[in-house]
Amino acid sequence: MDLQAALALAVEESTAARGISTPNPPVGAVILAADGTVVGRGRTAPAGGPHAEVVALAQAGDAARGGTAVVTLEPCDHTGRTGPCTQALIRAGIARVAYAAADPNPLAAGGAHTLRAAGVDVEHLDVEPWPLTEWIFRQRHGRPMVTVKLAATVDGRIAAPDGTSQWITGPAARERAHAERAKLDAIIVGTGTVLADDPALTARTPDGAPYPHQPTRIVLGKRDLPAAARVLTGPGAAQHVRSRDPHAALEATGDAVNVQVEGGSTVLGAFFAAGLVDRVQAYIAPVLLGAGLPAVTIPGVGTLADATRFHLESVERLGEDVLLTLLR
Amino acid sequence: MDLQAALALAVEESTAARGISTPNPPVGAVILAADGTVVGRGRTAPAGGPHAEVVALAQAGDAARGGTAVVTLEPCDHTGRTGPCTQALIRAGIARVAYAAADPNPLAAGGAHTLRAAGVDVEHLDVEPWPLTEWIFRQRHGRPMVTVKLAATVDGRIAAPDGTSQWITGPAARERAHAERAKLDAIIVGTGTVLADDPALTARTPDGAPYPHQPTRIVLGKRDLPAAARVLTGPGAAQHVRSRDPHAALEATGDAVNVQVEGGSTVLGAFFAAGLVDRVQAYIAPVLLGAGLPAVTIPGVGTLADATRFHLESVERLGEDVLLTLLR
Repeated sequence: MDLQAALALAVEESTAARGISTPNPPVGAVILAADGTVVGRGRTAPAGGPHAEVVALAQAGDAARGGTAVVTLEPCDHTGRTGPCTQALIRAGIARVAYAAADPNPLAAGGAHTLRAAGVDVEHLDVEPWPLTEWIFRQRHGRPMVTVKLAATVDGRIAAPDGTSQWITGPAARERAHAERAKLDAIIVGTGTVLADDPALTARTPDGAPYPHQPTRIVLGKRDLPAAARVLTGPGAAQHVRSRDPHAALEATGDAVNVQVEGGSTVLGAFFAAGLVDRVQAYIAPVLLGAGLPAVTIPGVGTLADATRFHLESVERLGEDVLLTLLR
Repeated sequence: MDLQAALALAVEESTAARGISTPNPPVGAVILAADGTVVGRGRTAPAGGPHAEVVALAQAGDAARGGTAVVTLEPCDHTGRTGPCTQALIRAGIARVAYAAADPNPLAAGGAHTLRAAGVDVEHLDVEPWPLTEWIFRQRHGRPMVTVKLAATVDGRIAAPDGTSQWITGPAARERAHAERAKLDAIIVGTGTVLADDPALTARTPDGAPYPHQPTRIVLGKRDLPAAARVLTGPGAAQHVRSRDPHAALEATGDAVNVQVEGGSTVLGAFFAAGLVDRVQAYIAPVLLGAGLPAVTIPGVGTLADATRFHLESVERLGEDVLLTLLR
């Protein structure tokens, strides 16, 4: 297997670690024996557990000797809760390390240098695998990457005048939205949404079972919530932040890297007004409503120049609906 | 060339006749010589001019003898402003006719029967080529097919609170919207749109030149318009219909088959409320506005069951924008 194919496999591993490895990066690693066959695959375990390289090396055993490690992120060089991956690679007799993204974290960086000093052949592929996007964002900006998720009609309504909103989008879109939730560190909604809809905000498979990983649920707003509110019960942590400040909600997410704001339109508007929206996932249904609640209400917008303009990252068809992913 | 390839060529011809042939159907025809080579191609000329078969036969000349005619619509059998195509095909010595859609017009139908009676081998391919969609719709429903076109932000706004709306979508979307206009028989807007934006509503190429075919422009509403309104001048016909009834606007389009309603939100709402929207072309820009004018306002909508639900016919990326085509 060549380096590019091995990297694709490592990215696949890292994808499965998203949401689970936080605060560690969701890294994937593949070990190729000297003859190029895959002898180990691994991904970052939940915090406190082994890093991807260590998992993959353990699987490879002696077959790693003289082989190549392909890793989505520069191997770490520091001793945190686990030993440095550089030492594990050197001990295993790895002859070559190819890594994709450089480590932006000054505490962990320097891995490439250490490996080279130990005689390992090091190659920097200089690509940023997408499963690392949110983690790298946090290293650079000191806060989680914030996604706004909305499910709206073509004319931008998220509910009819009487508040009905189930279901604007179809089963394929809802399934996808739940799968995305299972990769999040935290979900934020406003008290208004909880009082109006009493959503559980859990990540569930199509048959209703909760995913193994559940995001922390944060409710933002000053109004009281009923103790029986579904968002405060069920699997996963939950917290009511008695504030209207989006920064307060982000602080409550701790060391989260990937946070999603799901509504209502006032809370979304507060995140937009604060310049805190990095990505939008808009599920658009082929429906025209012509009245009802707008998806987003942003205070202070008067003219088109006040609009928040994004880059159209991707367009996906999900059954009868469309998912637009927008990036700042 | 086989029949399917010849049909694809005929569909290409018919595409170019959309908007130009009305009230005649935009038909395409291809003549294959006995050895299968293409010896003639044609499309319906503007009303009063020859039909596609006649154009293609003229191009083929003697090479048509013993050959095959591939036509997107059953050849007509009646004498209107031009003679019946069936007789032209028989006179030219065509041995076989393959046609896609059956003629739904009782006056023109019977072509297949006449051809068979004259000893021509007739094959009905039984597909409905898309350029005939609007014309067939009119034959079946006795009114033009109505498309609602809108250009909105992801949150469904077509203008900011101060009325600014240029430009929500980018150049690729605008170019496409103008190319679509050049295929229309008529465009309808409300007086409010004319008073607010003074649009020309002409179909223009990216360098600003008008397309050869211009749709008739209909302004619907009771308010007076300034004589200098751009919509009432420039290339193409224009008419002010002093009514709020969408049916009155459609009547003013005469024998149009393909009509587009471009706004404002009240006029769009009236068409929705009257059940007169057959297709939606929504150009969605990767922009969140959070305030301003909604794309559509439909009177009487209270709950989600009142929504108009469409089938998502296609999703196209146009630069940074997306074009969703919805069908009832």
